[in-house]
Amino acid sequence: MIFAPLYDILLRTGLDAIALVPGANFLRLFGKDFHQMERPLVVIVPRAGEPVAIVPNLEMGSFKPLNFPGPIFDWRDEAGYMGAFLAAGQALPQLGTGSRIGVEGQRMRVFDFVALQKALPQASFVDAHADISSLRLHKTPTEIAALREAIARSEAALEATLAQVKIGMTETAVEAILLRELFSAGCDGLSFDPIVAAGDNAAKPHAKARPDYAIKAGDALLFDFGGRYRHFNADITRTFFVGRVSDHDRAFYDTVLAANAKGREISRAGLSASALDDTVCKVLENSQFAAFKRHKTGHGLGLEVHEAPQIMRGNDQVLEPGMVFTIEPGLYREGECGVRIEDNVVITETGAESLTTFPRELRVIAAG
Amino acid sequence: MIFAPLYDILLRTGLDAIALVPGANFLRLFGKDFHQMERPLVVIVPRAGEPVAIVPNLEMGSFKPLNFPGPIFDWRDEAGYMGAFLAAGQALPQLGTGSRIGVEGQRMRVFDFVALQKALPQASFVDAHADISSLRLHKTPTEIAALREAIARSEAALEATLAQVKIGMTETAVEAILLRELFSAGCDGLSFDPIVAAGDNAAKPHAKARPDYAIKAGDALLFDFGGRYRHFNADITRTFFVGRVSDHDRAFYDTVLAANAKGREISRAGLSASALDDTVCKVLENSQFAAFKRHKTGHGLGLEVHEAPQIMRGNDQVLEPGMVFTIEPGLYREGECGVRIEDNVVITETGAESLTTFPRELRVIAAG
Repeated sequence: MIFAPLYDILLRTGLDAIALVPGANFLRLFGKDFHQMERPLVVIVPRAGEPVAIVPNLEMGSFKPLNFPGPIFDWRDEAGYMGAFLAAGQALPQLGTGSRIGVEGQRMRVFDFVALQKALPQASFVDAHADISSLRLHKTPTEIAALREAIARSEAALEATLAQVKIGMTETAVEAILLRELFSAGCDGLSFDPIVAAGDNAAKPHAKARPDYAIKAGDALLFDFGGRYRHFNADITRTFFVGRVSDHDRAFYDTVLAANAKGREISRAGLSASALDDTVCKVLENSQFAAFKRHKTGHGLGLEVHEAPQIMRGNDQVLEPGMVFTIEPGLYREGECGVRIEDNVVITETGAESLTTFPRELRVIAAG
Repeated sequence: MIFAPLYDILLRTGLDAIALVPGANFLRLFGKDFHQMERPLVVIVPRAGEPVAIVPNLEMGSFKPLNFPGPIFDWRDEAGYMGAFLAAGQALPQLGTGSRIGVEGQRMRVFDFVALQKALPQASFVDAHADISSLRLHKTPTEIAALREAIARSEAALEATLAQVKIGMTETAVEAILLRELFSAGCDGLSFDPIVAAGDNAAKPHAKARPDYAIKAGDALLFDFGGRYRHFNADITRTFFVGRVSDHDRAFYDTVLAANAKGREISRAGLSASALDDTVCKVLENSQFAAFKRHKTGHGLGLEVHEAPQIMRGNDQVLEPGMVFTIEPGLYREGECGVRIEDNVVITETGAESLTTFPRELRVIAAG
């Protein structure tokens, strides 16, 4: 039964219903996703009674094959969506005063939310993003295989890109090469717009490639990127040095590498996400470069690029087999240089495996 | 002054403040965008007093160069974002009881919204998506040039793809070729995941390419796709026939083409979006294929793939020079065949220009 994971969550949380919008949770449950633009599509699954769907009429051809086990209220562009929301609300009389409906707070948009509130005016709404997304916390072997393939293709694209990088190229030129190579390597899509950042730009954790900066000898060159395969997202960072590397930058790099290695080494079932982050952060915080740390160790990875478990102090989530997350310590000397080394790790029965295998040792590219 | 367009909107709407999240409006105002993931970033611009920003600490290196003209409350992963929201709320005492704050309802997510409501508990919130996005309604010549370039590169990729299509290929194999060609043509990114759909799949307006369907003679083959250039999105649909075309399908195709041509012909400043949609729809509704119409004529296009003006009955927005939108009538015989022909049109002083120029006449590909 397609909604079984949701009923587990309803029982565990005591919520009376869950309202889902298109996105990763929807895709995991239905094996299919829908565009999320100006046409709201919402599925409401109550603990008691039939689920109800609100669907744009032009999606009905795609929605019908899901064999949705309850009433579907479709709406056409010319009529607008509010009538379908109100009809759906009337089909859910059990969601009256005192009932609590969980929504995906990091995914549902305000206009879906406002329409739902009007459709179910007696109910109260709760941000249950973490609870709902917990249905994707443990990856199946098939899912891990898809992720492994996304990573293998992304790593092949990186190697092919490095062979073409030359001193004097702009960041955007290198980015264009990487994009071509990702699709030549057979990726289905991009996990996100890649970051290709050199020199001082590498010191911005979420930099954008610049069309007017030519990479020069001595620069760090940071790639944070990933291709998608069967909906699963790689998310890899490697930092190289162009032409040459100073002793200071080598020590800077090796500090990040030590933190990354420590994270991969200690990851195992039973460890908490908080403890993992704490140990990795301490490698940075106990180094001569402590002042240049800016962010947590990592985030879960799967159908979304950022999902649970967040590898972050204060998150007492215990790691379990099948969980996949990034280990991506970084150091950022503003205006000068940034280094981040990011792996994608799966917890196994016996420890952890890094699905990313691209070498991590300091590498000087475009030398001579 | 960077916020001038927002102050115009505040005056026109009578709102007391606008709260912006990363996305197209943010990008248009600041010339820069930010990731919108698990770390909220919100800018609040009141009618009276200084604007206030809530920014994840790790984005501060990217945010500082914006020279934001008011206090910035940054927050670190380990502390969480709520403290920054509350501090921002205290810095905005003018947004008390009775004040109204406009938000981007189709962009802001529920968790940003809930945090804002807690930070400004006396204020009420209004979905002002259309009002706020009106700052992007008229494109500048520079923006139109970027769009033109995105379209030219996308059309080149389509032509290169068609030369490689053969009977027996799967939809996903054709999609992979298209993706490679888009980046070889120099696109910066994808406007959206392309639709490559043959035969019965073309009858679903938002189909996904199938890995297990080999295209066969007589199939329609529909491409709905676009590349991005300097943040501007092409959005083009062309439908071809593979190997041969039946007389029935030719009549079906030519009906859509007539609707598309009518839309391009009558588009001009002074016409309402509603009237444009009505005229295009009537070409379909007065044909022998009236039963197979499923959706409105089009949507605005720019930094977002779907934005204002919606070309839709009931939208009394009057078209004006600089507005850009799609004209994309379609007909869908469920289980059999679908045809859509989509152009990207800009309103000029003297009429309208189709920025898409890829030929529209029925074309049989992979013949012999």
